[in-house]
Amino acid sequence: MSAGPIDPPARLLMGPGPITVYPRVLQAMSAQLVGQYDPFMTATMTETQALYRDVFRTANDATLLVDGTSRAGIEAALVSLVEPGDRVLVPRFGRFGHLLVEIAERCSAEVHAIDVPWGQVFDPAAIEAAIREVRPKLLAVVHGDTSTTVAQPLDALGAICREHDVLLYCDTTATLGGNEFLTDEWGLDAVTAGLQKCLGGPSGSAPITLSARAVEVIESRKSIEAGIRTEGDPVRSDPIRSNYFDLGQILDYWGPKRLNHHTEATTMLYGARECARILLEEGVDASVARHRLHGDAMLAGVRGLGLAVFGDVAHRMTNVVGVEIPEGVVGDAVRAELLTDYGIEIGTSFGPLHGRVWRIGTMGYNARRDAVLVTLAALEAVLRRHGVGVPTGGGTEAALDAYRAAA
Amino acid sequence: MSAGPIDPPARLLMGPGPITVYPRVLQAMSAQLVGQYDPFMTATMTETQALYRDVFRTANDATLLVDGTSRAGIEAALVSLVEPGDRVLVPRFGRFGHLLVEIAERCSAEVHAIDVPWGQVFDPAAIEAAIREVRPKLLAVVHGDTSTTVAQPLDALGAICREHDVLLYCDTTATLGGNEFLTDEWGLDAVTAGLQKCLGGPSGSAPITLSARAVEVIESRKSIEAGIRTEGDPVRSDPIRSNYFDLGQILDYWGPKRLNHHTEATTMLYGARECARILLEEGVDASVARHRLHGDAMLAGVRGLGLAVFGDVAHRMTNVVGVEIPEGVVGDAVRAELLTDYGIEIGTSFGPLHGRVWRIGTMGYNARRDAVLVTLAALEAVLRRHGVGVPTGGGTEAALDAYRAAA
Repeated sequence: MSAGPIDPPARLLMGPGPITVYPRVLQAMSAQLVGQYDPFMTATMTETQALYRDVFRTANDATLLVDGTSRAGIEAALVSLVEPGDRVLVPRFGRFGHLLVEIAERCSAEVHAIDVPWGQVFDPAAIEAAIREVRPKLLAVVHGDTSTTVAQPLDALGAICREHDVLLYCDTTATLGGNEFLTDEWGLDAVTAGLQKCLGGPSGSAPITLSARAVEVIESRKSIEAGIRTEGDPVRSDPIRSNYFDLGQILDYWGPKRLNHHTEATTMLYGARECARILLEEGVDASVARHRLHGDAMLAGVRGLGLAVFGDVAHRMTNVVGVEIPEGVVGDAVRAELLTDYGIEIGTSFGPLHGRVWRIGTMGYNARRDAVLVTLAALEAVLRRHGVGVPTGGGTEAALDAYRAAA
Repeated sequence: MSAGPIDPPARLLMGPGPITVYPRVLQAMSAQLVGQYDPFMTATMTETQALYRDVFRTANDATLLVDGTSRAGIEAALVSLVEPGDRVLVPRFGRFGHLLVEIAERCSAEVHAIDVPWGQVFDPAAIEAAIREVRPKLLAVVHGDTSTTVAQPLDALGAICREHDVLLYCDTTATLGGNEFLTDEWGLDAVTAGLQKCLGGPSGSAPITLSARAVEVIESRKSIEAGIRTEGDPVRSDPIRSNYFDLGQILDYWGPKRLNHHTEATTMLYGARECARILLEEGVDASVARHRLHGDAMLAGVRGLGLAVFGDVAHRMTNVVGVEIPEGVVGDAVRAELLTDYGIEIGTSFGPLHGRVWRIGTMGYNARRDAVLVTLAALEAVLRRHGVGVPTGGGTEAALDAYRAAA
């Protein structure tokens, strides 16, 4: 097998993620390793925890990284919080709601889902009604589901969950850093994310934060692994069903005990740290405003091309817009042409929306004016070749108008 | 929270891993992303599978990366192969044998372990006797256990396992690329690794290979997740207990179906690919010979300093040597001084060996003559300051003699 040095083609990634990584993040990831318990390493871990507290807007001590993709973070949260037979309620409004159901089921939870049509969000009162009926231990909800491009309002859910003594877990992979997200103010008990959306990094590290309530549940299930166990350490006959995702052990690894668990993925740690640094240098509020600005410009541009927007626009995520594929147009052919001729990637959709909706992202490094305008110009050109009667310059002019109006 | 750009101190990592990463790997990891289904991405995944077939010395089609550390690979193999109640036999000769027991127990397997004192390996006949008694579905064994620095001979186990219709899983994290390892010739059904030892990369990606027998077991347990399920797809009431580690789904993601699962950790993929490229350019046999050469030189050097070597030297791993800490010397104080004054890291040990044994690695990028000699010179200087009567130049001279003898 002979393979040359890695040499990816130039791409402008304007899909729902992963997106083009901030060059600074890639630079940080080329830093050399230090040992697993080097004072520099443990200091870097501690520093990264502090950075992510600011990113998550939380004072939670238990804030750290899970070594895996955003899906690993979800599974770590659920398998650590949910015991077999526990009731879990999932308000499902897109593909990633299905994923929460799937993962909770694999934890042998008794899972109850409630649904709204894709493109809509839940009235908190409907969620509360379901809580009254199901009486779950945990409410698990996605913040922004890229599959439908809408974000579930969360601000009322924390109080509802506390009133009914329910733990509240949220997957904020697709929204964190580009949409307002207030872990403590909203009363969230467990939140997980990934780097590959608004944080502008590569997939492979999952930031997570846990409230004191969540840590208490996890600690009550703790079992120290044989091989590093010492006398008096807790051993349970029904431990958390995963070693890799056992947040009790991972907390001991990140905490003052520094108890050996996995070998930290140091390069991903460096990347996650730089993502947080970039976000906090800009300021979380400024980053959210930037995502809104460029997301609004993309929305205006898409409409300026005469295209219809999918989903409940009042609840749309700032960082991705769903676009109805015009009648008679083969969505994947347009996407292939954009990629091959212009080096621009936009997204397809899952399940019921596949072939019906494109998803165009403006997030992280690519929440930029030039990225928006280039994408709209290229989309116009490709649509015209596919026989769509697009207004000449309709996309770019509408986006420029949106920028002017916001200035 | 203000934190500066990442700027690690210069370190020569001569512990049991992670070790200093090949600069070429870090360069590869700074390549920009492409989209998850970009033709370049899928081609790179396919190419990386082919590279790892050569690394593992296998023709297994099912050869791919799990997105997590080496421990993630272990858990993926075990949770995918083992159903609750299945009997698993673990020959345990160090800390990572305990880890296999721990992970298999969390899969609700009925786990049986057999033991030898740390520092020794098993006679295959003893393993066969245990197989006859336990009649396990799976034999799970570590190849080289860095905690004791010895490697279990595996060449006889495949035939034994076939005869008794037992699946054979092996964790080769600590040995692959630096010690002979022949997946197909030895008849292994599932093998997992990590990048952070002889492969010279950072932790965070776990190469894995599965025989047709193993794939058959996994396929029989397959359940396609809701949200991407289509009519006729298999759904099981007792699916693999993890979504993230469900190798059936991960195989569909890496295979021709390209069925969406996690978002591939592209930067880690680039790194894993480059690790394999470096190894295969050198040649696996040449790399093993290099590890043996520098490991032997380190062994000679340590003895030249008058230090005793821990464990069964006849079965020692090429890439790490266990060193008995001299009477009256505080092992961690020596390590701290080596790190602080010389920028060199050597390892401590776990459990019963902590405070008794240091572990010095010569692997991947650091299986080099200069790394060996510098480490021995520094160790001599530090030991002398700690009152140990080391022969002047004893370590470096013995190592140089070993190099001359091998030339």
